[in-house]
Amino acid sequence: MRFFEDIALGERRETGSHVFTAEEIKRFAGAFDPQPFHTDEAAAAKSHFGALCASGWHTVAVWMKLHVRAVQEEDRMLREAGQPVARLGPSPGFEALKWLKPVYAGDTISFETEVTSRRPSRSRPEWGVITLENTGRNQAGEEVVSFTGHVFVERRDKTPPEPA
Amino acid sequence: MRFFEDIALGERRETGSHVFTAEEIKRFAGAFDPQPFHTDEAAAAKSHFGALCASGWHTVAVWMKLHVRAVQEEDRMLREAGQPVARLGPSPGFEALKWLKPVYAGDTISFETEVTSRRPSRSRPEWGVITLENTGRNQAGEEVVSFTGHVFVERRDKTPPEPA
Repeated sequence: MRFFEDIALGERRETGSHVFTAEEIKRFAGAFDPQPFHTDEAAAAKSHFGALCASGWHTVAVWMKLHVRAVQEEDRMLREAGQPVARLGPSPGFEALKWLKPVYAGDTISFETEVTSRRPSRSRPEWGVITLENTGRNQAGEEVVSFTGHVFVERRDKTPPEPA
Repeated sequence: MRFFEDIALGERRETGSHVFTAEEIKRFAGAFDPQPFHTDEAAAAKSHFGALCASGWHTVAVWMKLHVRAVQEEDRMLREAGQPVARLGPSPGFEALKWLKPVYAGDTISFETEVTSRRPSRSRPEWGVITLENTGRNQAGEEVVSFTGHVFVERRDKTPPEPA
């Protein structure tokens, strides 16, 4: 992770892409979301979705996998360049998780993140708080999922912010 | 699913309970959230969590599993009683997903749902919109996760609501 100071407002980054195969859609849904339109092609064809599609929770779990991979890759490159690696705090959660369109078997979903707010934490001066708008689009460019996250990122400058 | 008309404001229901074993915490995290405090006991002991704990996405995926099971069980009982079963529409998403405390290996999480709002859909008179506050508590009664969902539930009365 880069330090809070190195993350700019408005910055956009690609998180990664993933192909949702029928096999993994059915495997995830069998474990966590066993509704017929996620587990069975024939039943899905007769449902309001019209074809096998991924559990919404599968879509966001794949986003998490790509996000963790992107952060770990960034840390590796920083270490190779002899740069310090900032700590990333625990996630307090997410807001406004929207499943906008189905993710069908065979779809490729590409995720992107935009920094929409950044501020030093008042109560914990070693941390900054970053707000991220995450979106996933399918191969046709249609937005299929969006959600807003807040993360704590280590500050290089540990000075508490001035009172407002 | 019961019909919209049969679901009361303020109604609370248990969704189910689940024991998060170390094995399944590591299996989920290996696939979707490979951070050391979710995949390795020794690394987790040295992390800010202090012990192996579940990915937040694992916690909500297990909630989904229990929710689907509860709805399917309700449908089975309605059919056995010769009652009609209402359709449940696709979920448009969730709000305010908060991971409040870690879910550690061995923890039993019990989920509960409260109906906090209910209204007929203006644009689609065959559906009602229900807002649900979902919470998960550990065996000590501590809230570990909460989130707000909206679901479309079939109305028995398909009359459009009066204009406001």
